[in-house]
Amino acid sequence: MILSALLTSVGINLLLCILFFTLYSILRKQPSNIDVYAPRLVAEGKAHSSAFSLERLLPSPGWVRRAWQLSEDELLSAAGLDGVVFMRIFTFSLKIFSFMGLVGILILLPINYVGKQLNAFDISDLPNKSLDAFSISNLEDGSKRLWVHFVALYLATGVVCYFLYHEYRYISLKRLDLFYSSKPQPHQFTILVRSIPKSSEGTSSDSVESFFAEYYPSIYLSHTMVCRTSKLQGLITDAKKLYKKLTDLKSDAHAQHKSRRSGFLGLWGQKVTLVDHYGKKLEDLEENVRMEQSDVSLAREELPEAFVSFKTRYGASTALHIKQSDNPAEWVTEIAPEPSDVYWPFFYATFLPRWISKLIVIVATIILTLLFLIPVAFVQGLANASQLVKWLPFLKGILTIAFVSQVITGYLPSLILQWFLSIVPPIMKIFSSMQGYISNSEIEKSACTKVLWFTIWNVFFANVLTGSAFSTFQFFLDFKDIPQTLAIAVPGQASFYISYVVTSGWTSVSSELFRMSPLFWSTITSCARGSDNEVDVSSVPYTSVIPRILLFVLLGITYFFLAPLILPFVLAYFCLGYVVYRNQLINVYAPKYDTAGKFWPIVHNSTIFSLVLVQALAVGLFGLKQLPLASTLTFPLIVLTLLFNEYCRKRFLPIFQTYSAESLIKKDRKDSSDPAMTDFLDKLVTAYRDPALMPIHYSQNANDHNTPLLT
Amino acid sequence: MILSALLTSVGINLLLCILFFTLYSILRKQPSNIDVYAPRLVAEGKAHSSAFSLERLLPSPGWVRRAWQLSEDELLSAAGLDGVVFMRIFTFSLKIFSFMGLVGILILLPINYVGKQLNAFDISDLPNKSLDAFSISNLEDGSKRLWVHFVALYLATGVVCYFLYHEYRYISLKRLDLFYSSKPQPHQFTILVRSIPKSSEGTSSDSVESFFAEYYPSIYLSHTMVCRTSKLQGLITDAKKLYKKLTDLKSDAHAQHKSRRSGFLGLWGQKVTLVDHYGKKLEDLEENVRMEQSDVSLAREELPEAFVSFKTRYGASTALHIKQSDNPAEWVTEIAPEPSDVYWPFFYATFLPRWISKLIVIVATIILTLLFLIPVAFVQGLANASQLVKWLPFLKGILTIAFVSQVITGYLPSLILQWFLSIVPPIMKIFSSMQGYISNSEIEKSACTKVLWFTIWNVFFANVLTGSAFSTFQFFLDFKDIPQTLAIAVPGQASFYISYVVTSGWTSVSSELFRMSPLFWSTITSCARGSDNEVDVSSVPYTSVIPRILLFVLLGITYFFLAPLILPFVLAYFCLGYVVYRNQLINVYAPKYDTAGKFWPIVHNSTIFSLVLVQALAVGLFGLKQLPLASTLTFPLIVLTLLFNEYCRKRFLPIFQTYSAESLIKKDRKDSSDPAMTDFLDKLVTAYRDPALMPIHYSQNANDHNTPLLT
Repeated sequence: MILSALLTSVGINLLLCILFFTLYSILRKQPSNIDVYAPRLVAEGKAHSSAFSLERLLPSPGWVRRAWQLSEDELLSAAGLDGVVFMRIFTFSLKIFSFMGLVGILILLPINYVGKQLNAFDISDLPNKSLDAFSISNLEDGSKRLWVHFVALYLATGVVCYFLYHEYRYISLKRLDLFYSSKPQPHQFTILVRSIPKSSEGTSSDSVESFFAEYYPSIYLSHTMVCRTSKLQGLITDAKKLYKKLTDLKSDAHAQHKSRRSGFLGLWGQKVTLVDHYGKKLEDLEENVRMEQSDVSLAREELPEAFVSFKTRYGASTALHIKQSDNPAEWVTEIAPEPSDVYWPFFYATFLPRWISKLIVIVATIILTLLFLIPVAFVQGLANASQLVKWLPFLKGILTIAFVSQVITGYLPSLILQWFLSIVPPIMKIFSSMQGYISNSEIEKSACTKVLWFTIWNVFFANVLTGSAFSTFQFFLDFKDIPQTLAIAVPGQASFYISYVVTSGWTSVSSELFRMSPLFWSTITSCARGSDNEVDVSSVPYTSVIPRILLFVLLGITYFFLAPLILPFVLAYFCLGYVVYRNQLINVYAPKYDTAGKFWPIVHNSTIFSLVLVQALAVGLFGLKQLPLASTLTFPLIVLTLLFNEYCRKRFLPIFQTYSAESLIKKDRKDSSDPAMTDFLDKLVTAYRDPALMPIHYSQNANDHNTPLLT
Repeated sequence: MILSALLTSVGINLLLCILFFTLYSILRKQPSNIDVYAPRLVAEGKAHSSAFSLERLLPSPGWVRRAWQLSEDELLSAAGLDGVVFMRIFTFSLKIFSFMGLVGILILLPINYVGKQLNAFDISDLPNKSLDAFSISNLEDGSKRLWVHFVALYLATGVVCYFLYHEYRYISLKRLDLFYSSKPQPHQFTILVRSIPKSSEGTSSDSVESFFAEYYPSIYLSHTMVCRTSKLQGLITDAKKLYKKLTDLKSDAHAQHKSRRSGFLGLWGQKVTLVDHYGKKLEDLEENVRMEQSDVSLAREELPEAFVSFKTRYGASTALHIKQSDNPAEWVTEIAPEPSDVYWPFFYATFLPRWISKLIVIVATIILTLLFLIPVAFVQGLANASQLVKWLPFLKGILTIAFVSQVITGYLPSLILQWFLSIVPPIMKIFSSMQGYISNSEIEKSACTKVLWFTIWNVFFANVLTGSAFSTFQFFLDFKDIPQTLAIAVPGQASFYISYVVTSGWTSVSSELFRMSPLFWSTITSCARGSDNEVDVSSVPYTSVIPRILLFVLLGITYFFLAPLILPFVLAYFCLGYVVYRNQLINVYAPKYDTAGKFWPIVHNSTIFSLVLVQALAVGLFGLKQLPLASTLTFPLIVLTLLFNEYCRKRFLPIFQTYSAESLIKKDRKDSSDPAMTDFLDKLVTAYRDPALMPIHYSQNANDHNTPLLT
């Protein structure tokens, strides 16, 4: 790729971004779009539609200022610690890439450019220069200038590690602060006990009761058994749908008087109004639900798992950490998630199937990650013009037009790739939920890690290695050659990744802001059904967003050393992302649960991986460039980086796993004098009841439309 | 090697064994050797010298019967659970090798022998047959008879896993039984706290006191700071030596009247008797010790580490398992060893140097293991006749005699190898003690693992791979070829390992029984100084013994499949070992501390490794023999074996790490009604005092010779 082509691509994408931003500035002020651009404010009742004015039709940068001025405390109260941590990925990246950008553009880039390897030293014809002239490939073999790169690598590693340490420390302190200032929360007092042994007499519930009453008499509070409620959940979903239909009918004055026959398929029988018909059906369904609920409680479809609550946080923590039974496969304890965070369909009854399914999921994930591109390439191969004509002969006429054919053959494969890529995060989420995690946040975290490695493999390694002789297994098996293979392949892809940052990165941010598909659906549905009162506020889709951001961190760190020209574009990506996501966090997304920063270790590990990757690359590259001393001297850097990581693991990671005795006891003592604790403990007893077992009152609500729902 | 050569070697070694056993039967009955063959009985005062009779000069098998009849309970009380576990390695091996021996000799061996690959089907000339005729190499490529081996492999894996499960289960139950029936022991109530933060005012001791009194007011009992006492220990050792000299002098009526001058080097000054002289010196030394002791206590050479004792076992376990401080690098808790098991010179003050030294040790161990043979081969190369003559010209005359030269060149290199090998366990022990373990048993366990991998690498892999093109790193780096490389190399070494089992294995057992070097030293010293009352009873040197036994398990399992002819010899080894070590456990060794079976997981892991090794070999071998289906079908066996191992890790390993809440609370409740507990808790307060800080009274004892030592 030559410089002018890059500039054209940048120009086009810049214009697109400006267009999106401008459109957003206007559209967000239209009352009809408020569900799309500020669903959170609507749900919180803070949205106010202003009267029509000319200002509404002009783009204004007010939202940028608001997003910018947001303080961290405001962010914390709005988006939880997870939101704060999420935004700190951006500030962290901005910090490291500012340093790298300065070093890269002011020092490394000129040095690369005056190299003679590619015979490019001719300043007159700059626009037609290949981008490779700005990369390290342009330096001749054995050049002493490579030592500048060597020093820059050491410096950059130092700076990144400093900021990593600083962030880890800051976030872990934040996490502790949050804990110290938190109100009593059910999950602090509760643990999940799994693999409860069956006692010969009595139910599992009895054996939980007797076990904890026996061994923890002074601190044991209560327990809630986990039941198998999949059937019940199906019924409740049906009831919900019916209730919605009914309220829609009632709000529509015209439809209220429609009628149908009560017999089979509405073909014969007595005529009844639709409202009565659905009302009757809803009542029947509710009766079913209630019967099933009492069935579940009576017939005891209990699983050998229970949430056990204690009177103190320290008590819960004690029971969590000590092996309960002489048989380590029984009475297995786990941290309980927040009640709203529990993933209810977890049902792996015993120890053995649980970890077998875990192993299967791990294998499936590895296979999906490594072999993903093979079926995709196959499908893409099928999606060319001649194949299409074979399948859908009626397209023949259109496809003979050269332009259409070009667009289809050029665009269809990439569309297919995009579609395949977009289904990966949901698939990984399904995998993670099969792994036996008990909370949505754990599933999300695990899926996030999976998607991260998937992305790094498929967007980085598979892409880079296709150029050189690429065979997945061969690459792994000859692992002594990895640095060299990478050193040959990676610099060649620099121009591809620069345009990748511009096209994929910038576009993803602006489309996040513009919310194309919600806007589309909202327009369609509002045309079809009129306005709908219920607004669905989702939480930030960390599973898909964080891996994408971390990919750009990886690209930035890797190409800082190889082709520093990428850095301004990466910096621009993070600047855009910083503003856009702050805006989205306060307007669009609302957290459903808070992991209190548990995503940070993923970010930390991924950054360390990027560092080690660039160091391994440097080892290979210095070797290729016939500077074996530099190659050897880079080894200690890898060791130091790994030691630093190990230190951070020991020093900070435990803080993200459990709280310390010190903090738990302090909190307990503070609470012991609080009269509100009695109330809290009373509520704690029922906090972990399966929502499917809650009484439902839809038909009552349907009759009395104004009362709020009780779910 | 041909069959007759093997039989000769077996014959010679058998005769040697019989000779050793016979000599032992006679020598053990001589009163002068009682210190050598029953030091434990002497120390316990159970040894009784019988009057002289003719019987004393005849070999008798009575000791074999006694060793054989010993019940497990007797063994438990005599040698602790460690002794029982140690003997169960033998019974376990006997069980699996009996099965393998039956299958191997009755089924596999004939099948191998009728193979035609090596053109060996000629029963007439049996004695001159190469041993390879009995190995799997003799089967022709693609032979259907290999399926018998395939089935045998599956069967053997099943049987080994069954017994492994059974043993793990049995030993973990024994461990729990032992705990339930144990008297209160200090280490059950105590934890070690490391990385105690320095408080601004006061000492570390104060901050321990205030921390635990604050957070564990109801269960905290006391604490003992760990001090730096290396100087003190040196002084005490000197005092001990001096005291021994003095008592020797006093018991020797003649020497008591010797005298020397009191001045410099005894050259001038007043004449004093030697007894007075040493007595004075001892008193001075003791004064020094006392001053140093009070120095240590006053000047507070405290380390930031302390043993903290609690009033209940459950309390100690709670404090052990929960992270104490918000900073995970402070107040790090560990299981406390038995007081007699504490390794006092542990001194790594802080968190960071501790794990850096750990990393260094790991690297050093790997280097020592992988590169051990290179310097050894170099030294062996130097130790040939011509080199010796060059260094020590006076040997020239002797070395020209052909026989002497042959013996030296033939024997010296192997002597050097033996000597190098014998210093490995002590080196590994030093490594392990540098790793920051706090107890002798942990050091021993860790050293045992290190020696095990060292042995397996250097005796098995390095030996096997020297035959084929051997390069350590290449072997590891091309790990997809490992099965094939092994499949080519390992069967070729069958005859070497058969004779290795006979020479090294049988000899090691009989020399263990005969105790050559203690016998030698005892004879020398008793000639020189007359009898010595102090008997040094050592504990079983698990570090060097267990790896050797496990090597034979590895050889047996591996060659069961390849060359079943090895099995009778392995079985003979374990039979001998069974009798000999039972005898040694009751007569020679006395346990100094009991890890309660913590060595078993090492045995388990090593056996699983052997299984996976033979399975990988089978994969390679079936491939070589052009039976790809069998090769593929062996893969599931590897997976199943690893899953089985994983299951055992989850199911049994936690039992070997900590006790459960259930068992701790039960024990605590049982004790709470015991009036002896008050006494015990009083003693507990001082149980973990550094022995170097105990008051010493040697000079007093020296004056009053009959009182026992107070150390």
